[in-house]
Amino acid sequence: MRVLMRDLLGQSLRELRVSADLTLRDVSSSARVSLGYLSEIERGHKEASSELLNAICTALDVPLGDVLRSVAERADAAANVTPLPVPGARAA
Amino acid sequence: MRVLMRDLLGQSLRELRVSADLTLRDVSSSARVSLGYLSEIERGHKEASSELLNAICTALDVPLGDVLRSVAERADAAANVTPLPVPGARAA
Repeated sequence: MRVLMRDLLGQSLRELRVSADLTLRDVSSSARVSLGYLSEIERGHKEASSELLNAICTALDVPLGDVLRSVAERADAAANVTPLPVPGARAA
Repeated sequence: MRVLMRDLLGQSLRELRVSADLTLRDVSSSARVSLGYLSEIERGHKEASSELLNAICTALDVPLGDVLRSVAERADAAANVTPLPVPGARAA
């Protein structure tokens, strides 16, 4: 399994923030996390602690359950990706 | 929001392990994590890194998306808990 939770979570958090028309600065300020760290989380470069995840959910006004379902859907999609056949490649 | 992702995740991972009739030792061995650390994760005392979460999912033979949906349901249930009225307490 090559898909990482922190990558999927970062994508979901960024998407939710953009949908809510909030800037990194808005969320960083209300969740009391540095802008750089929040950006690293959104890019999947850092793991968010459970406490920080709660603070971000509160800043986004989205329940934790909704965020996790969004991440679960991404995980499903990633797991179901079938690589396209490469023309000329030998079958495995 | 007082519910912590690591608590809910630990509960889900433990439930899935027990349903699969696996011991801590089984999962610790196939996920290559120490038994003590795995136990701490199941009790919600430690955060699991994304890599370790994948290893545990593989050991349990459960897709990441399924684990996250189970955690999301716990988060919903926890968020919907309405404290019982305390007799004699003043209304807020």
